[in-house]
Amino acid sequence: MTEGFRLASRLDADSAFLIDWPLCQVRLMDDARFPWLILVPRRAGLEEWAELSPKDSVQLAEEIGKAGRVLARMFTPTKLNVGALGNIVRQMHVHVVARFDTDAAWPGPVWGQGTRIPYDVAQKARLSADLLPHLE
Amino acid sequence: MTEGFRLASRLDADSAFLIDWPLCQVRLMDDARFPWLILVPRRAGLEEWAELSPKDSVQLAEEIGKAGRVLARMFTPTKLNVGALGNIVRQMHVHVVARFDTDAAWPGPVWGQGTRIPYDVAQKARLSADLLPHLE
Repeated sequence: MTEGFRLASRLDADSAFLIDWPLCQVRLMDDARFPWLILVPRRAGLEEWAELSPKDSVQLAEEIGKAGRVLARMFTPTKLNVGALGNIVRQMHVHVVARFDTDAAWPGPVWGQGTRIPYDVAQKARLSADLLPHLE
Repeated sequence: MTEGFRLASRLDADSAFLIDWPLCQVRLMDDARFPWLILVPRRAGLEEWAELSPKDSVQLAEEIGKAGRVLARMFTPTKLNVGALGNIVRQMHVHVVARFDTDAAWPGPVWGQGTRIPYDVAQKARLSADLLPHLE
């Protein structure tokens, strides 16, 4: 079922691979403003939640919950935000974002707000290393 | 399990009851700019996806898919958007929105964009009546 799966180039450019879960590739959004995971179901051609098979739908819901629990444990955010938009990058991907009432976009959504601030290399490596044991 | 469930007053004010599904109350967002359903799990005190029971998580994923398929069939949108934010209204609720590349917020998110335009009474009644047979 993962045959033919290729990550969209924009997702590849804006985020970094962390781990493969049973359904999704888990990626770190390269935006130092928000602790932000992206889940990309490894299904070729998938664009809409409404097109997921029943089995994949169950698995995605579980993986969203798991991603949220990892962010909650590591960052103690004010709120978690979950979103599957895809207006720009059509490949189905789900954002799971730790939000704080002090962050740059609060209480608005993170999407389309301001300009992404990439992590510096050391920051990204450290954060990825911190995240990985929680994601495994 | 639905004991103690009470709809947040802001959700009550901004949207209209359509139907109860096994987990969620399904509501029509009162914003004529976008065909927009809101799913509210009937679980007292629930705020986060990451706090859903495994069984509720499965059911929510299924109901999101169903809501999306109804909107897709009725409106043939460019894209469906799914979001669970809750930065303002903490009660867990999931937005399922039919988006068009001609709509007022495209390609940005609908949340926090511009000002809600309520349906007029006749419009809302007609749309609800059109939606209901698809939701049942």
